[in-house]
Amino acid sequence: MMALGRLDMTSESALRIIATEDAGSDVAPLMQALGQRARQAARLIALAPEEQRNRALLAMAQALRSRAGSILAANAQDIADARAGGQNAAFIDRLLLDGERLDEVAIAVTSVAALPDPVGRVLATWTQPNGLRFERIATPLGVIAVIFESRPNVTADAGALCLKSGNAAILRAGSDSFRTSTEIAAALREGLEAAGLPGDAIQLVPTRDRAAVGAILTGLDGTIDVVVPRGGKSLVARVQSDARVPVFAHLDGNCHVYVHGAADLAMAREIVLNAKLRRTGVCGSAETLLVDEACASTHLAPLVEALLEAGCAVRGDAATQAIDARVTAATELDWATEFLDRIIAVKVVPGIDAAIDHIERYGSHHTEAIVTADEAAAGRFLSEVDSAIVLHNASTQFADGGEFGFGAEIGIATGRMHARGPVGVEQLCSFKYRVHGSGQIRP
Amino acid sequence: MMALGRLDMTSESALRIIATEDAGSDVAPLMQALGQRARQAARLIALAPEEQRNRALLAMAQALRSRAGSILAANAQDIADARAGGQNAAFIDRLLLDGERLDEVAIAVTSVAALPDPVGRVLATWTQPNGLRFERIATPLGVIAVIFESRPNVTADAGALCLKSGNAAILRAGSDSFRTSTEIAAALREGLEAAGLPGDAIQLVPTRDRAAVGAILTGLDGTIDVVVPRGGKSLVARVQSDARVPVFAHLDGNCHVYVHGAADLAMAREIVLNAKLRRTGVCGSAETLLVDEACASTHLAPLVEALLEAGCAVRGDAATQAIDARVTAATELDWATEFLDRIIAVKVVPGIDAAIDHIERYGSHHTEAIVTADEAAAGRFLSEVDSAIVLHNASTQFADGGEFGFGAEIGIATGRMHARGPVGVEQLCSFKYRVHGSGQIRP
Repeated sequence: MMALGRLDMTSESALRIIATEDAGSDVAPLMQALGQRARQAARLIALAPEEQRNRALLAMAQALRSRAGSILAANAQDIADARAGGQNAAFIDRLLLDGERLDEVAIAVTSVAALPDPVGRVLATWTQPNGLRFERIATPLGVIAVIFESRPNVTADAGALCLKSGNAAILRAGSDSFRTSTEIAAALREGLEAAGLPGDAIQLVPTRDRAAVGAILTGLDGTIDVVVPRGGKSLVARVQSDARVPVFAHLDGNCHVYVHGAADLAMAREIVLNAKLRRTGVCGSAETLLVDEACASTHLAPLVEALLEAGCAVRGDAATQAIDARVTAATELDWATEFLDRIIAVKVVPGIDAAIDHIERYGSHHTEAIVTADEAAAGRFLSEVDSAIVLHNASTQFADGGEFGFGAEIGIATGRMHARGPVGVEQLCSFKYRVHGSGQIRP
Repeated sequence: MMALGRLDMTSESALRIIATEDAGSDVAPLMQALGQRARQAARLIALAPEEQRNRALLAMAQALRSRAGSILAANAQDIADARAGGQNAAFIDRLLLDGERLDEVAIAVTSVAALPDPVGRVLATWTQPNGLRFERIATPLGVIAVIFESRPNVTADAGALCLKSGNAAILRAGSDSFRTSTEIAAALREGLEAAGLPGDAIQLVPTRDRAAVGAILTGLDGTIDVVVPRGGKSLVARVQSDARVPVFAHLDGNCHVYVHGAADLAMAREIVLNAKLRRTGVCGSAETLLVDEACASTHLAPLVEALLEAGCAVRGDAATQAIDARVTAATELDWATEFLDRIIAVKVVPGIDAAIDHIERYGSHHTEAIVTADEAAAGRFLSEVDSAIVLHNASTQFADGGEFGFGAEIGIATGRMHARGPVGVEQLCSFKYRVHGSGQIRP
């Protein structure tokens, strides 16, 4: 339930937020101090035993419930402002909390407490001939900054995941949810302190000043270890371009389903419809369907008709346009577009090499699926497609930390460094080497 | 033998190299084209089977031997220039190749071929209740840029490690070793092509123009995935400060040995002498000795005398100065200094908390050791000291990929992202998720 899409914000509001940043001379010292406090808290959180971190998470959930009145009142103010500002219904819906939704937020925090402890896992162990015993041990990353937008539940979700993984969090809420997020952050602090942990382990940036984002991207004098942007494409692009610290993010989720010549038609139809239409606004939704010409004569028409009947617009190459008059011509741009809507681009490809080349050329290295009964073809696709997630005979909509069994995710990354694919609590960890000797010296 | 220290360059020469960079308008298109070729080669190398990569490594070693004449002739010219430029004996020695040293370079490349394949390792596998089977598989990172200085063998070492791990390499040699590195790079290209792999998989920057470094640090339009600086502190600092791509590096190796109250004196003496003096110029050499006051009355004097007798200067706190008139007063700066010389700072601390606090305050998160017979104290030290490598009853000089059993290392990292500690071929890999289904769609 915590696996949010990346549509926390319309691109218009993202642009507005970014465009109105100013020099923020008052914000700089505020943010420096916040970074220093986070770094100090991080060390205490990193050393806190699992039981204490879980106790804090449960106390946080309890505080979210006991403070429901003030949280919902703050949300009502945010909603009133958003309505007065002319925000659309979808925006209002993302921003809105009610008793039931707030209870879901608290349940999500409780479920994070129930996850296995990612800290202290023995990732590898071996002994050298000289008797030195080596252990690679999972440790927290340090301080994680999360920049998000209108969904106020991200405050609790991100804070909980950072705490579970032994990290301190700096949370930057969108202006529109600032009051709600401030009240939620107060509940998180109450929970931390109830468990004897520093309240500064989860800090919400206490200003709407847009200069705070720029300050975070500098890394605040080395106090921030990684930045996670949770929002629209313009926010992610800006963070990826300007951050001086590592970023866990994906800019695009231009995902593909390739129906191979040896695909079962019924399975292909179910997977294509699900991959495209189960939810069109999530990053794992399929945007392009590639059909092998080896099965196009039997499979292309039923797949296209099924999509059209389900209310999906189809933009196709010449072969696809020949299927149905409702298919419009796909442009070069369509192959590279993450529609996030009931639109799909469809192309017939002459074989698996062409399918892989198309994905390499237009894709975003996020999630791709092959449908085939041919294990060798599946093996090639899974090996050669350079994406974070590659699936055989399954829907791309499984691109989600919850579906992976991670319990929850803070986002999905398409970079190759450190974290790739769904970023759960394990990926919010680093590691260290513990070496056990009996007096060994190096010759 | 491939675990080089970070003293490839005097800080003077590093500053000279950095300070004389110019706008480099001619260099920009050259570097862009080089980056594009690297990215294209990276895809072919990533998909090359283990056998082919190993065959290329063996052919590279063979080409290094068959081209010995031109390599040594180029080295003689580099050496002549360095002598004419007034470089000191240590610098000349780092730069110098002879038949024996070149043979060692070839042997090192052969030994990389013998390492287990890091690509395609199954890092984890599990099945979800819906029957989806997940695999986390090691994949190459992509394109790795290595910026190094006078040691020409780094050309072959770094190129071999990148190829073994399925990555393309962009190598930037120091001006002083440019001719030698160019000849070595030609041998590597010959080996790649002999095995049917693209020669562009290992490219040496074909100019001494200092603007090439700045171009690499931009990431060359996303064609570089990670930068590894191999050189003096000013080079590393500049790369860490300016790179717009991830960096694997350590700026300082201010390593500590803590002699706990329950330490065996004979073991402590052996470890302290080895950690400080086996080689003083490597990043894992100890720079500060902390002695617990619980054993100071019995252990401090023998440890200090042993260091002094071995020719090591000792800078101590008041208690240490009282041991021997040759001990000078340690300043605040000494605690934070990586001497890389026969100098050690010595302090008596009131207990393990003070030892850990001192390391946290002055250390560089690289490598620290505790000497003690008390397992509980060792456990606390290994858990609470936030360094890449923490050792119990062993010398800090084991901070080396070869000693870890990694076969070879491209460097040692003190960052927390992706790689930490010795960076071997496994750390030069990323990963992807392969998901095996039987028609699953997401409800």
